[in-house]
Amino acid sequence: MMCNLHLSHTVDKNFQTWASIKQSRIEHLLDITLPPSDLAPINLHDAMRYSTLGGGKRVRALLCYAAAELCETDLAIADAAAIAVELIHAYSLVHDDMPCMDNDDLRRGKPSCHKQYDEPTALLVGDSLQSLAFEVLSQPELFENASLLVNNQILMLNILAKASGSKGMAGGQAMDLSAVGNQLSQMELESMHHLKTGALIQASALLGALNGSASQLVAVRSFASNIGLAFQVIDDILDVEANSNTLGKTAGKDAISNKPTYVTILGLDVAKQHAHNLYENAIVAIAPFGINAQRLRELAGFIMQRSF
Amino acid sequence: MMCNLHLSHTVDKNFQTWASIKQSRIEHLLDITLPPSDLAPINLHDAMRYSTLGGGKRVRALLCYAAAELCETDLAIADAAAIAVELIHAYSLVHDDMPCMDNDDLRRGKPSCHKQYDEPTALLVGDSLQSLAFEVLSQPELFENASLLVNNQILMLNILAKASGSKGMAGGQAMDLSAVGNQLSQMELESMHHLKTGALIQASALLGALNGSASQLVAVRSFASNIGLAFQVIDDILDVEANSNTLGKTAGKDAISNKPTYVTILGLDVAKQHAHNLYENAIVAIAPFGINAQRLRELAGFIMQRSF
Repeated sequence: MMCNLHLSHTVDKNFQTWASIKQSRIEHLLDITLPPSDLAPINLHDAMRYSTLGGGKRVRALLCYAAAELCETDLAIADAAAIAVELIHAYSLVHDDMPCMDNDDLRRGKPSCHKQYDEPTALLVGDSLQSLAFEVLSQPELFENASLLVNNQILMLNILAKASGSKGMAGGQAMDLSAVGNQLSQMELESMHHLKTGALIQASALLGALNGSASQLVAVRSFASNIGLAFQVIDDILDVEANSNTLGKTAGKDAISNKPTYVTILGLDVAKQHAHNLYENAIVAIAPFGINAQRLRELAGFIMQRSF
Repeated sequence: MMCNLHLSHTVDKNFQTWASIKQSRIEHLLDITLPPSDLAPINLHDAMRYSTLGGGKRVRALLCYAAAELCETDLAIADAAAIAVELIHAYSLVHDDMPCMDNDDLRRGKPSCHKQYDEPTALLVGDSLQSLAFEVLSQPELFENASLLVNNQILMLNILAKASGSKGMAGGQAMDLSAVGNQLSQMELESMHHLKTGALIQASALLGALNGSASQLVAVRSFASNIGLAFQVIDDILDVEANSNTLGKTAGKDAISNKPTYVTILGLDVAKQHAHNLYENAIVAIAPFGINAQRLRELAGFIMQRSF
């Protein structure tokens, strides 16, 4: 089902083709980056592949590529960045689904990692996917044929590390856990989501934009910050409006677990309006770059219309 | 208690002073690297500090510093490497202690992280400590005043990432889990430990040695590989001979959990002889560097005599 936000943006066919090509590309790259299933420890490598391949819209990778198109970043760099952010995202899903965390049995329409394998394996899968993300971005040969300076490779690693840790994604997850059963203000909820999903989404766009000018980087940062929050608001809306089959994960979890969401704090209609406002802010941020930012603009529309 | 290996090496006072200074140094560096306890998310940051500070002999940091002395690596680089390997080590202990893994309530003489806090916090502590290790090593300003090339910073990150992931430490832990209740050959046990503890110990020495010549790097790699295995053999011996108070963690766990160890495979006496042989191999590897390798030599003796 579509998230019925009654927004004017449409996702055109040209963008759908581009997104589809990039989704296939990142799927292939992840496939050849992940250790093969027949390499010891076989169970761990099999579970890493199970948890990473064959699912998801790859929004973070698409953000990398779209930002790279604006900033004319080398494709090899955008590839490495896209692989790295998708690995970090996959690790976070595996750990978040574990019984001690969100205890979710379903992910991308399949049993989650700890259900398909077991808890110790899921723990090690997440740990190993995180290491692999940094291994990919720190390949010594990565920048050999690229126009970027090697200092920028260090910067990419630093951006990803900060976005992943306690002052980024993991910190946001900690805040989310401690928010269960509590009343949060919209501002508190927003600052939690800025870390929990926003930090990695912003990092995805920034890593792709690394070749950009200062004004491009500022614009991409603002774009990603707004669209990252919009993404989360829609997630909250979908948790209420979708069912588990279309969502590919357990729907209605937020209400069951008594989590504060944009819907509980703002109500459904205001939450939809808020998502729309955040989308508009994102579009305004990249307006100065006209046609060069077209891919990012289309991607924002795609995120608003996502039906997963 | 001392692990009574009847070896001839002694740890002299000069080394004890050096080790004590370096232990204080790494403790201080970890203290200022870890986010303060009053920074949100407070509970997570407090638990990260609890799990990292105030315990352990810091063998991995000492290896960094000793290898750095041989290879005349800048102290700032050795510091960053030492912080990073200790953070990776601390993360691995927190995750290994979790109920779904080794289910250990005691670590460094204190309740383990998931006992002192809770399981979700322990999961996020481990995840965040891993990210922080890569954040520390990817500081853009790290190499500004150092004699090393920035390419070497990339190499350090790549060494650490590989040593931590599924083809290193996490992979070894997966093999260890699947070995429970099984008969392993000495070779299978050895290849498991080469990953589980050996990979990070070797990385610790290599990161410190990064400024070294090719022959120094080869020697340090061989030294670390042998002393890393010796370290593990002694761990297995101590698990049998020590009690929980002196060990600072639960003793006798291997036997209870039916894990194959050097003691179960070789018997206590042959295991001790094997540790001694590995120690000798480590010493031979660095012999060509004479007095310049004295710190590594003393550290090897310290590892053999450890009483924790």
